[in-house]
Amino acid sequence: MGNCCAYLGPQKNTNVRVSLPAVCFVWQIAMIILFGVFIRYDEESDAHWVETRRHENISSDIENDFYYRYPSFQDVHVMIFVGFGFLMTFLKRYSFGGVGFNFLIAAFGLQWALLMQGWFHSLDHTTGKISIGIESLINADFCCAGSLIAYGALLGKVSPVQLLVVTLFGVTLFAVEEYIILDLLHCRDSGGSMVIHAFGGYYGLGISWILYRPNLHQSKQLIGSVYHSDVFAMIGTLFLWMFWPSFNSAITDHGDGQHRTAINTYLALASCVLTTVALSSMSQKKGKLDMVHIQNATLAGGVAMGTAAEFMITPYGALIVGFCCGIISTFGYLFITPFLEKYLKLQDTCGVHNLHAMPGMLGGFVGAIVAAAASESVYGKEGLINTFDFEGKYANRGVGTQGGFQAAGTCVAIAFGLVGGAIVGFILKFPIWGDPADDNCYDDEVYWEVSLYFGH
Amino acid sequence: MGNCCAYLGPQKNTNVRVSLPAVCFVWQIAMIILFGVFIRYDEESDAHWVETRRHENISSDIENDFYYRYPSFQDVHVMIFVGFGFLMTFLKRYSFGGVGFNFLIAAFGLQWALLMQGWFHSLDHTTGKISIGIESLINADFCCAGSLIAYGALLGKVSPVQLLVVTLFGVTLFAVEEYIILDLLHCRDSGGSMVIHAFGGYYGLGISWILYRPNLHQSKQLIGSVYHSDVFAMIGTLFLWMFWPSFNSAITDHGDGQHRTAINTYLALASCVLTTVALSSMSQKKGKLDMVHIQNATLAGGVAMGTAAEFMITPYGALIVGFCCGIISTFGYLFITPFLEKYLKLQDTCGVHNLHAMPGMLGGFVGAIVAAAASESVYGKEGLINTFDFEGKYANRGVGTQGGFQAAGTCVAIAFGLVGGAIVGFILKFPIWGDPADDNCYDDEVYWEVSLYFGH
Amino acid sequence: MGNCCAYLGPQKNTNVRVSLPAVCFVWQIAMIILFGVFIRYDEESDAHWVETRRHENISSDIENDFYYRYPSFQDVHVMIFVGFGFLMTFLKRYSFGGVGFNFLIAAFGLQWALLMQGWFHSLDHTTGKISIGIESLINADFCCAGSLIAYGALLGKVSPVQLLVVTLFGVTLFAVEEYIILDLLHCRDSGGSMVIHAFGGYYGLGISWILYRPNLHQSKQLIGSVYHSDVFAMIGTLFLWMFWPSFNSAITDHGDGQHRTAINTYLALASCVLTTVALSSMSQKKGKLDMVHIQNATLAGGVAMGTAAEFMITPYGALIVGFCCGIISTFGYLFITPFLEKYLKLQDTCGVHNLHAMPGMLGGFVGAIVAAAASESVYGKEGLINTFDFEGKYANRGVGTQGGFQAAGTCVAIAFGLVGGAIVGFILKFPIWGDPADDNCYDDEVYWEVSLYFGH
Repeated sequence: MGNCCAYLGPQKNTNVRVSLPAVCFVWQIAMIILFGVFIRYDEESDAHWVETRRHENISSDIENDFYYRYPSFQDVHVMIFVGFGFLMTFLKRYSFGGVGFNFLIAAFGLQWALLMQGWFHSLDHTTGKISIGIESLINADFCCAGSLIAYGALLGKVSPVQLLVVTLFGVTLFAVEEYIILDLLHCRDSGGSMVIHAFGGYYGLGISWILYRPNLHQSKQLIGSVYHSDVFAMIGTLFLWMFWPSFNSAITDHGDGQHRTAINTYLALASCVLTTVALSSMSQKKGKLDMVHIQNATLAGGVAMGTAAEFMITPYGALIVGFCCGIISTFGYLFITPFLEKYLKLQDTCGVHNLHAMPGMLGGFVGAIVAAAASESVYGKEGLINTFDFEGKYANRGVGTQGGFQAAGTCVAIAFGLVGGAIVGFILKFPIWGDPADDNCYDDEVYWEVSLYFGH
Repeated sequence: MGNCCAYLGPQKNTNVRVSLPAVCFVWQIAMIILFGVFIRYDEESDAHWVETRRHENISSDIENDFYYRYPSFQDVHVMIFVGFGFLMTFLKRYSFGGVGFNFLIAAFGLQWALLMQGWFHSLDHTTGKISIGIESLINADFCCAGSLIAYGALLGKVSPVQLLVVTLFGVTLFAVEEYIILDLLHCRDSGGSMVIHAFGGYYGLGISWILYRPNLHQSKQLIGSVYHSDVFAMIGTLFLWMFWPSFNSAITDHGDGQHRTAINTYLALASCVLTTVALSSMSQKKGKLDMVHIQNATLAGGVAMGTAAEFMITPYGALIVGFCCGIISTFGYLFITPFLEKYLKLQDTCGVHNLHAMPGMLGGFVGAIVAAAASESVYGKEGLINTFDFEGKYANRGVGTQGGFQAAGTCVAIAFGLVGGAIVGFILKFPIWGDPADDNCYDDEVYWEVSLYFGH
Repeated sequence: MGNCCAYLGPQKNTNVRVSLPAVCFVWQIAMIILFGVFIRYDEESDAHWVETRRHENISSDIENDFYYRYPSFQDVHVMIFVGFGFLMTFLKRYSFGGVGFNFLIAAFGLQWALLMQGWFHSLDHTTGKISIGIESLINADFCCAGSLIAYGALLGKVSPVQLLVVTLFGVTLFAVEEYIILDLLHCRDSGGSMVIHAFGGYYGLGISWILYRPNLHQSKQLIGSVYHSDVFAMIGTLFLWMFWPSFNSAITDHGDGQHRTAINTYLALASCVLTTVALSSMSQKKGKLDMVHIQNATLAGGVAMGTAAEFMITPYGALIVGFCCGIISTFGYLFITPFLEKYLKLQDTCGVHNLHAMPGMLGGFVGAIVAAAASESVYGKEGLINTFDFEGKYANRGVGTQGGFQAAGTCVAIAFGLVGGAIVGFILKFPIWGDPADDNCYDDEVYWEVSLYFGH
């Protein structure tokens, strides 16, 4: 196979034996130093908790936030590592890279996320220390999700060293846009339609657009799936699908907010499956279903409910969102991805445009509309305050204003994604990162010791 | 492969390009309308909860039922989608259909289940509204389980459109029989030995019996497994096995009931593995184990504890139930399934007779016996009342009577399954559903775009 | 394939058709009898709980220990069955044995563990009864983990009957060494660095050392993986990796202890991934990653935090432990395993020396050092007492003494593992167990009905 391509000139150097270990070691040592300087246990995870508790007259262990959050944390953790990881095993010869590099990115990114998000959200300005607890771990997983989504657009076309660069900048940009959207604009976005999905999707598309490979067709024999790689990908799909109610509700307010978020997400996802199947069947000869649609578009309902699930969108409102997203996302796989590739020179391996970018943007706007339509009669006086956190300096913000800010937040997320992605794309064009040649993409043999594919 | 069968006459028309999208769209739109008219958030998931709470002097968020139920809900969710889904990937060429149509059925069924079960259990007769919360979601998953079990008997022999019909009627029948058994007969059946497994199993067998295919042997080259499809199926087995304690305890009473149910189920399942291995080894030349038994019969202990796990069956009682069910279920795979096929003209792809119908029936009767043997000395005065809910108009029911009603409930479940299945079977015989021809069964290529099976 | 080896003399008799069913039946019947005599529900899972509760003025269901433990219990359960099971599917022709025998061992072992651990920890000396509850189930899973780790060293070289013997003795030895370490020496070891990993690892190595097969190279064509068996193994890796915070924190004290344990484990594991990738890449031509390292060494950080995660090791301390363990474990796969095989005649199929024995031993010593370095200024007066349980007759134990006892506990675990393993190894050398011949190892066809590997 190598010989026939000899006329293409010298292969790119994909040797990462120096760069990959160097980046990993330097990075991990930097993390240890920064954690040593900045990171401390928060009040609830510190051994002094027992004294704090007595001091504050807290009677029961269960009042520790940990017990409200931990089951959802583990569900989110599964989504990040098994969900995203296995969803990306669908290529016939890139399953190691799909699940393995996903693992690397997430383990790398979550440490940096604890620092960056902690810097913005839990820095004690007196002591200069950042305190971490269960909610920090969930947020770090969320933050990694942004970079993992971006990886979906790049799958098979970049080196692991490039992915670490993508993650370094991705996490940093995430922390900044999250701070702007949640803190400065005071948006609500518990499941991250804007902050995670719109940002992550457009970030990946921005990078992929800059890294356009005109001769990628030389790897076209490896772009498809084989039977069992599609079954592996269904593991990813199902764990994402099942645990999405936990994803959207993991950091909502205790009580009705968390409960309602789970219900709304569950409904939107169920509805989304039906319309995905419908459109997938309509689009193929003899009504056959396409695994690509089933693996991906069925999840779009969860993405699009990332903002509004917390609100009183009503159960049928959730179904409508899922209904539309199944159609839009499948439509994206059928027509928009080929269009982007052909006319915008944008190669999007997993179709993150259809699963994250577009549904995330829609989710942001749905959230804005539902927020603007909120009223005291529906939420109750205190319910409205609780849901939108109209307290302190936001005590007088009206729901209309809130809706406007939610829409503005969506635009901020997209802008950060596109501009950040373009800049990172240019950085990745330097010829030092060990990325594969155009005829060498989607192939695990470039970065992995691969023994046998089949046989004895 | 197609050519050699030409003498069989024209192939059936398996084109579902119109019917499948039509059913999905019509159905999903109907759901949106019905949800709009009927479904509302319950008190605990409504933003007014904060006011209700103050009104009722509830001090802590944790008293929200959500926090007791949510972890079990997610475990049940995993069982429905990954457990049932992957258990049905074992066929060499029907893994897409196994996991994919399972996904479709469940997403379709759970919406209808929320309406049907809500109609019977949480309809406010004043407002005409059904309120949903976390327990509704669990019950909807349970309700879908009935139809997914039925799918096990039909795997590879029906079209996705037929499966939606199976689900539509399956969920409806489930809601009715559940209402009769739990509300009218006042049975206890927290893990659904009767309501879910006996009903679902006999429902599938009833359908399959009517849909008997005399020439199914023409597809016999596709009825087996390949090495890795059996490993995929073990994913399903293990997630079902591990989470069965959550399944049986998901909607039991808080406290000792939930705790005891988990322990009993755990023990019965452990015991069941040993006797399954023993019988499987005994049955084969040189003592070799058969994957079919390990994948299925090891689960029969959980099925059979669906009713009695909540009771004071004692730990060794749980082990005995598991012991017997491992033997009975493996015996079923060895002798009863071939017998049913040969003499009763009943083709049961996954052997749901051995895993669900028979152990479910047994579980119903075990529950009846354990209930009839209950006493105040074992349960305590209040424990007995709590466990069997002897309150209100049932305050004077004795344990003997309760045992009788439990046995009657089992018969109701079986009757609903068999009769309902037969009727649905006749409906599915109309030549409009796009089902495959006899020489075209167990083949994903009929309803899925399949690229490569193996190779480059 | 059989013919070419004819000159090796008669094949071993691997027929287990009598021995395997006999052991399973006898064992399961013995369990039923022993459970009948000894095992009862504990107070919280007994129907009398409602009366106990009123008696003790307990107001809320949530004070039932069940609700603190159940989510972690299920995570541990997943690690035992899916985690360990799928991690051992990596061999090209031993995936059935990997996941299937793991299932058998665990289901067998956990019943015996409930009895043995209950004997030491929850025997009521007045009534002679052992009471079990949710914590017993978690501990039983932990106890099985010891034998499953040992299986890792033996994978592919022993018969299922031998594995049941390994488990019988493994669980018994575990219960004794656990009693010595936790009760007599009063060590803290919530995640079992010493009790589970060091013991289990050395136990397996001890057995494997005695069972050395000089002609094992005759099976060398089956010792590797194929592409998709490596992807299956990643399922095991990821579920172990993700749920390790639950593993280490499952039986810690409620509140800050549980919270801190989860955070520390999460951080150590993240750090471990980076250094594993670094060393794996450095060790291969062109910097290619080796799946064996990614599947295994990434987990060493969790093993090594099994003791110290509960302590105030600080977040950067956790990162340092993970950093070192990734390096040490990968180094082990590269150099120590080949060394052991060549010079010490020790064949360790999964490399449990690198993943469990060595990191477990290290974890024990890290725990000793962190304990010895504890102080009231860091833990608070009560925090120190709570964390190390310095109450009753241990009220006057100092942290230095505690550190010494922790180190002694590690040595006890290793000694039990090595000596116990050697003795069990000799028992397994009797020619009655149906183990495979040297040219017949790593092959599922010996103990499983295998249909097709690939193809139609």
